[in-house]
Amino acid sequence: MINQDTICAISTAPGVGGIAVIRVSGPEAIAICNTLFVPQTAGKDLLSQKAYTLRYGSIRRKDELIDEVLVALFRAPHSFTGEDTVEITCHGSIYIQQQILQLLIENGCRSALPGEYTQRAFMNGKIDLSQAEAVADLIASTSAGQHKLALNQMRGGFSNELRNLREQLLHITSLMELELDFSDHEELEFADRSELTALANHIEQVISRLANSFNVGNAIKNGIPVAIIGETNAGKSTLLNALLNEEKAIVSDIHGTTRDVIEDIINIQGITFRFIDTAGIRDTQDTIESIGIERTFQKLDQAAIVLWLIDTIEAKKQIEELSSRVLPHCKEKQLILVFNKTDLLTEPLNIDLLDLPKESQYITISAKQKTQIKDLENLLVQAAHCPVLSSNDIIVTNVRHYEALTRALDSIHRVQEGLNDNLSGDFISQDLRECIFHLSDIIGEVTTDQVLGNIFNKFCIGK
Amino acid sequence: MINQDTICAISTAPGVGGIAVIRVSGPEAIAICNTLFVPQTAGKDLLSQKAYTLRYGSIRRKDELIDEVLVALFRAPHSFTGEDTVEITCHGSIYIQQQILQLLIENGCRSALPGEYTQRAFMNGKIDLSQAEAVADLIASTSAGQHKLALNQMRGGFSNELRNLREQLLHITSLMELELDFSDHEELEFADRSELTALANHIEQVISRLANSFNVGNAIKNGIPVAIIGETNAGKSTLLNALLNEEKAIVSDIHGTTRDVIEDIINIQGITFRFIDTAGIRDTQDTIESIGIERTFQKLDQAAIVLWLIDTIEAKKQIEELSSRVLPHCKEKQLILVFNKTDLLTEPLNIDLLDLPKESQYITISAKQKTQIKDLENLLVQAAHCPVLSSNDIIVTNVRHYEALTRALDSIHRVQEGLNDNLSGDFISQDLRECIFHLSDIIGEVTTDQVLGNIFNKFCIGK
Repeated sequence: MINQDTICAISTAPGVGGIAVIRVSGPEAIAICNTLFVPQTAGKDLLSQKAYTLRYGSIRRKDELIDEVLVALFRAPHSFTGEDTVEITCHGSIYIQQQILQLLIENGCRSALPGEYTQRAFMNGKIDLSQAEAVADLIASTSAGQHKLALNQMRGGFSNELRNLREQLLHITSLMELELDFSDHEELEFADRSELTALANHIEQVISRLANSFNVGNAIKNGIPVAIIGETNAGKSTLLNALLNEEKAIVSDIHGTTRDVIEDIINIQGITFRFIDTAGIRDTQDTIESIGIERTFQKLDQAAIVLWLIDTIEAKKQIEELSSRVLPHCKEKQLILVFNKTDLLTEPLNIDLLDLPKESQYITISAKQKTQIKDLENLLVQAAHCPVLSSNDIIVTNVRHYEALTRALDSIHRVQEGLNDNLSGDFISQDLRECIFHLSDIIGEVTTDQVLGNIFNKFCIGK
Repeated sequence: MINQDTICAISTAPGVGGIAVIRVSGPEAIAICNTLFVPQTAGKDLLSQKAYTLRYGSIRRKDELIDEVLVALFRAPHSFTGEDTVEITCHGSIYIQQQILQLLIENGCRSALPGEYTQRAFMNGKIDLSQAEAVADLIASTSAGQHKLALNQMRGGFSNELRNLREQLLHITSLMELELDFSDHEELEFADRSELTALANHIEQVISRLANSFNVGNAIKNGIPVAIIGETNAGKSTLLNALLNEEKAIVSDIHGTTRDVIEDIINIQGITFRFIDTAGIRDTQDTIESIGIERTFQKLDQAAIVLWLIDTIEAKKQIEELSSRVLPHCKEKQLILVFNKTDLLTEPLNIDLLDLPKESQYITISAKQKTQIKDLENLLVQAAHCPVLSSNDIIVTNVRHYEALTRALDSIHRVQEGLNDNLSGDFISQDLRECIFHLSDIIGEVTTDQVLGNIFNKFCIGK
């Protein structure tokens, strides 16, 4: 039903540009564009034009010229959506973009909903649901890590892994159910239970690894949370600026990042770090200020990495003052002591004289003079534990996928228990089917319209 | 020289979109893209691919996949720039756009300067200078009027008119100069002076019409200045909102218009009106407030159209109070009296009882209830005197062109005087050549590098 309309939308970024691209997709795409488009050189009209070719000409409303355009033609199923598609490249004025869109609508197109092109690609079997979701992630990606994860997912790496699992599960299930069909003949056992157990254990390991990867995936997608704490004079904003300076090229060009609004987002070596805003700490008798400082310690709970910024000049004093308050909040976090203001030192810092916390790392820097900033960045990247950039492991980044995997994991655990307890095949088979259901949900083979609506609503229009 | 580089830039609007287009132009465009692009299906590489065709595949940095893209191929001279050109359509993430751009630069491209593609189109003789300037105007156009003017100019209407003029001028000049060559033979007169005078008069008329059209052209391009004045309680902001409401569709979608910052820009029936901000007027003894009100009257001098907003309930009083102060500022302007708040009237307004200013028009409206707003819009459009939307007259919109036309007009005036005073042919010929020079300047045949730099610097990058 959904594919009977022909849809249109501006697919390039909103606003004025040199050029803009309007995408028309659906059964009438070529016919509608053919009525508006006048090729510059005589010859075939769009209806008989070859797929994967370009044509120069003009878009007209009756006799009125709207713009000179390039038209690219795609024929079903060899297009992004799998439908007949025309891409009109026009001059990038907003007026022209709107006029052409309006003209298309007057001639029978409908304005595309957010993500509708990708949804059609999914509906027409060009991509599965997890690949479709990766398209949105790819467009939103602002760092090498995010980009690589989304691209892997879009190319179907995750889907293939899920299909593999499903095939193995179906294999077990069919053996189980065959056994059930012949349950009168007790002597028949099609599936060797120990072999089934080994298979279930293997599946459990794979699903478990995928579900666990979500921690890393989520951190890469949304940024690894880092808190910088320390006494008020330790130089926090100078350090943030020094880090930002190194990477301003990418960050400053991103429209609508939350950088100025909520937190500092900094890409370092392709990994996104999200700096949690914390207040400076100082010893105070003021009740209200004390509450603010307690809040800073509480915020540490959100962080995966803690940079404890220490003024080198009074390093011993600051460590003594804060250790008892900082350390309880740093369990299971990566703690890095950053000795700042080395430029003010008259003699080298003797680390041995300091009582450094266990399981912490340290580095000496001068945020002001920007020395050792690169080394600090390397430490941050190490602490981030992001294997993604150097391996081809599949990493889950999507909450919906994570939830489905968690449910699949529950089911396979019940299968393992069932096999262990020597339960009857029909119980085990039910859990196996549930596990398959949750995995199929990810690639969109059992997904409801409502779920689809939720997914594609989050897209930008024109994709 | 300039065309030996291969240049690259993002040609679509900046920011995140569904897709983005990166344009590569120059002698190495196809070769460079060929090293980065891996087609999805085996076959010819880009070097041997046909012009005006599309190819699906991926962009890679060595083994690392950057994105899946569509590549469109154009071969010199059949491209916008007249050079070999490749347009890469990638996913619209900023990260991907930057990665591909970086990859192109690593492989020998140079970042394009603002307007450099259009400049190359000019350098390669694809378009003349006035057409090139029209491309920038077309991209910036936000109303039907601006759009039509820019499109006409881009299609070469203005250039053709100038070439016509130049040919006629060259014709006179050659006759004049032939006469000079044979000046020893006084009996020879190749050019009939009365015929030359008629031709010069015709040329003067055409140049004069073009130069005069700049007033209209400039108003259409930059908006027709409208002042709304009236006593403080007359309902100015309600009226502005009512006008904005009717047209909010186009205005609200324009990024970076000056609407909120400086003035209200409203498109009505394809014409841009620029509402000059003025303070409300009231009778006051307060010195400072009086100064503010005087400034309002002075601002009227910038307006082409004055809307005098009058509270209908006390129409007689308001007209009497302000007439002596408003009218001196409204000479040579379109004055429209707007009787507002008709919703509050208990009996119909009797216009005959009012002493309306001569040469003014009037209308009764209710800004609050939005009645008669369409009629007021029609009055505004009539008052704007914009023939452009209904005719194909050539209208000059560019200050540079206007200045060149003014200089050409001076020269042709001297030619007319010379012919009238029966001056020697060598004097007249010099003025004729000067006139030709100024007209050629507009289409870029005698333009210096510095002038070119000024023109193309104003473009956006990627065009």
